[in-house]
Amino acid sequence: MKLYINKASPFARKARILAREAGIADRIEEIDTVVSPVTMNETLARENPLIKIPALVTDSGETFYDSPVICEYLDTLHQKAKFFPEPGPRRFAALRWQALTDGMMDAAVLSRYEMAVRPEALRWKDWIEGQKRKVFGGLHVLESEVGSWGDEFGIAQIGTACALGYLDFRFADWGWRSGHPKLTGWFERVSRRQSVAATLPPQA
Amino acid sequence: MKLYINKASPFARKARILAREAGIADRIEEIDTVVSPVTMNETLARENPLIKIPALVTDSGETFYDSPVICEYLDTLHQKAKFFPEPGPRRFAALRWQALTDGMMDAAVLSRYEMAVRPEALRWKDWIEGQKRKVFGGLHVLESEVGSWGDEFGIAQIGTACALGYLDFRFADWGWRSGHPKLTGWFERVSRRQSVAATLPPQA
Repeated sequence: MKLYINKASPFARKARILAREAGIADRIEEIDTVVSPVTMNETLARENPLIKIPALVTDSGETFYDSPVICEYLDTLHQKAKFFPEPGPRRFAALRWQALTDGMMDAAVLSRYEMAVRPEALRWKDWIEGQKRKVFGGLHVLESEVGSWGDEFGIAQIGTACALGYLDFRFADWGWRSGHPKLTGWFERVSRRQSVAATLPPQA
Repeated sequence: MKLYINKASPFARKARILAREAGIADRIEEIDTVVSPVTMNETLARENPLIKIPALVTDSGETFYDSPVICEYLDTLHQKAKFFPEPGPRRFAALRWQALTDGMMDAAVLSRYEMAVRPEALRWKDWIEGQKRKVFGGLHVLESEVGSWGDEFGIAQIGTACALGYLDFRFADWGWRSGHPKLTGWFERVSRRQSVAATLPPQA
């Protein structure tokens, strides 16, 4: 299989962590890809018209995106404990955490585009503040819920690790740890996992 | 159950169409909600820290988001044919179409924010062009694949109807039908469904 990634992408990192946790990373060729919301990437566009990463091309030539679909697909390819719970209350709790942390990453990536890609004269402070509000709203919810996770490391926890890792990588000045001691402790513990350590963003 | 919606939102429309198709719309109270990426909505933020719609509050007080999670949850509440296929190739094909059309809607909504919410002096033409490229890349893929759908109307088709309906609603000048005759014909047919007609955006 081929997985289009970028080492800075928190969404690609979800798939990269899951593949390592599941023991199937050796079946996946990671293809480092540069994407930008304002320039074309013909190679990637042929696989994913949304021109986003991650995109997974299976051995039979099918292409899957976005990260929740890729992760759920990869979860069918191994025999360890599943990262997506079976249908039922635990599944919907996990999917909601995944959506929460995906949404936090979306908001953080949009802030990043605003601050680093958009021409300086066209940047809008209210936009960044609105996106930052979503990130901190999510942190507040995670702080109150992380205590229920114990040692579990499924799709909810993978998403959370990627969201927090992205904040460290791009928004260290936002100081997400302040006011979130439980989440800080949890992140410190999971950061020791080999799958998490091996997929750190390049300059974190 | 309570479903936070806005009649202009293509993502909320996915859940509203699925509920009607599944025959469970009478169990859902639709709460019309105004959201903006740059202003706070305290009521919605208490349910969904991402301050986005749709958000579903179940009878037992749990809250689910985003639209794929809500739609998959609603799909467990009825006894008709399922809108999400069981695990297997058909499921991943459907999830990939859902991701494609969600991505097209994300790109269109970002274009809408750029053109209608952001102060005029701060708008960036390259951003809108980049988002429009994603929308048209998606249309191109759908045009080549819609012929395989027959009369099926699951989550892939619900997503597609919502994406095309949103383009009609907000971007009539983009002329999406041009060059996409199969998709045009398919959309004309599904637009006659009661669930689709009953959830048309307000000024379409």
